[in-house]
Amino acid sequence: MTTEYVALQKDLTARQAIEALRATAREVEIIYYIYVVNQRNQLTGVFSLRDLITAEPGESLEKIMQTRVISVNVRTDQEEVARLVAKYDFLAIPVIDDEQELLGIITVDDILDVIEEEATEDIMLLSGNTDLEVEEFEGGIWRRATRRLPWLVGLLFGGLMAGNVINFFSGTLESLTVLAFFIHILAGGPGNAATQSLAVVVRGLATGEVEREDVLRVIWREARVGIFVGLVCGSVMAVTAYLWQGIPLLGLVVGLSLAVSMSIATLLGSFIPVLIHRLGIDPALASGPFITTLMDITSMMIYFSLASLIILR
Amino acid sequence: MTTEYVALQKDLTARQAIEALRATAREVEIIYYIYVVNQRNQLTGVFSLRDLITAEPGESLEKIMQTRVISVNVRTDQEEVARLVAKYDFLAIPVIDDEQELLGIITVDDILDVIEEEATEDIMLLSGNTDLEVEEFEGGIWRRATRRLPWLVGLLFGGLMAGNVINFFSGTLESLTVLAFFIHILAGGPGNAATQSLAVVVRGLATGEVEREDVLRVIWREARVGIFVGLVCGSVMAVTAYLWQGIPLLGLVVGLSLAVSMSIATLLGSFIPVLIHRLGIDPALASGPFITTLMDITSMMIYFSLASLIILR
Repeated sequence: MTTEYVALQKDLTARQAIEALRATAREVEIIYYIYVVNQRNQLTGVFSLRDLITAEPGESLEKIMQTRVISVNVRTDQEEVARLVAKYDFLAIPVIDDEQELLGIITVDDILDVIEEEATEDIMLLSGNTDLEVEEFEGGIWRRATRRLPWLVGLLFGGLMAGNVINFFSGTLESLTVLAFFIHILAGGPGNAATQSLAVVVRGLATGEVEREDVLRVIWREARVGIFVGLVCGSVMAVTAYLWQGIPLLGLVVGLSLAVSMSIATLLGSFIPVLIHRLGIDPALASGPFITTLMDITSMMIYFSLASLIILR
Repeated sequence: MTTEYVALQKDLTARQAIEALRATAREVEIIYYIYVVNQRNQLTGVFSLRDLITAEPGESLEKIMQTRVISVNVRTDQEEVARLVAKYDFLAIPVIDDEQELLGIITVDDILDVIEEEATEDIMLLSGNTDLEVEEFEGGIWRRATRRLPWLVGLLFGGLMAGNVINFFSGTLESLTVLAFFIHILAGGPGNAATQSLAVVVRGLATGEVEREDVLRVIWREARVGIFVGLVCGSVMAVTAYLWQGIPLLGLVVGLSLAVSMSIATLLGSFIPVLIHRLGIDPALASGPFITTLMDITSMMIYFSLASLIILR
């Protein structure tokens, strides 16, 4: 926000306003929007330099100005401000307090930076980087590594939990080593499905696309996409597993587990960021690696349970 | 690009220029920058409405204008244009052809859209979405699912190749089922490390941060970060695996494979996008799921080879 803007009283004429502008033009950041305030510095109108130039010199500002001013409160989130400026193609937007008093303006060049920063933040969080700035490029090895390690080590222990599920079913695995060949399929497929739906929803929340429609509708739609995607991938892998190993029941177990896991993953990929967003936290924090690890554990439980029930019953 | 801008000849006076503006102000998209062209419509100067307002009425435009105009060629990439506008805080930038002829201008509100679109594109590609727009929210289930399926199915077959590596080592696995408990660790750790370094480099390339420094230096730095991160994670998991299963050699194998795989993964996560960028392709196409799958195969080969060599020798 800058306080270097032009604010005038409404009883001036266009000619007087131009004179006032000429006197202050060099000191202010933006002269293309001129704000009109009353005695108590409350924002009552706005006009553009274009309006002023084309007005009759004797016309009063009260006639030139628009009284419906789109402004933001000083406590408005910067992402929300960026969305408004982008939506209306403004060069600047005024900032007011609860008493309508004009405090400053936010210019479009600041908004450019905000949009770029927020996008970088989303990309970093989605990929499990606790490091939110690209300035990182200037940091040393030690600083860069220590910023990445918390996630990496944390997720290793998540992977250990998935390993623990396999340990629990080690009897099943010993009598059917072939099950191990499909662990990557059962871990990767649902993980990728979750990441896709997560990216779509997180980006939609960031650009404001999702709020416009009912959030429940988005989740419900993702759930149906998940079931569809799960059925296709499950069928493909059921056939592939059967052709590869020649065991029909193995095909059934691999296909069924994959279908169920991918459906759940797509649903979680949309549900978790929306939930976190509702709690007022940046939805990108429900980052890809987190949901992927959660799905690793879930899909291993489904896979080995089904294998025990169907093949080894 | 818009062709609705104001271009004047340099021999006009400030007063004449203001009159010309008053006549055309309602028709043009932006009047805050006025471009100066010669008889052949070649761009020779620029001044702002602010310069014009504060100038003496009799002054000629030749005196007011700046002759060093930052412009873009009509073939310049939109990401590059966005970077220039953001860097200089311009409200618009002129577009010229190879003969310096003024073709139009690109305004900052178009740049806002470009920056937002490019960020969305990067996020979608990095998460393996072939669907590059958030408009996707308006599509039906069928369209949404079919756009995601190519990646999902393709990656499943990638996962199958990792499974094939395990199949190749099934003898090793049968005599040591405990190896299966660590497959998630060996798949997840390197995948996450690659995704982190990929996000940092892809974002750096998008914002122009990386081009400024030597690309080889970025890769070399990522390689060192990878070795550091690999050593830490490998040591942690070596101890954990030993404590969990009580087999010292298993700890050695898990730790060593993890350290090597994570180092390679971090290197690939920076090397592949830079390589792709050099080939003139969007680096985000070297998406997370792609490198993750590549690492799945690589780390399984390292893990089972080391297990065969060290534990079962």
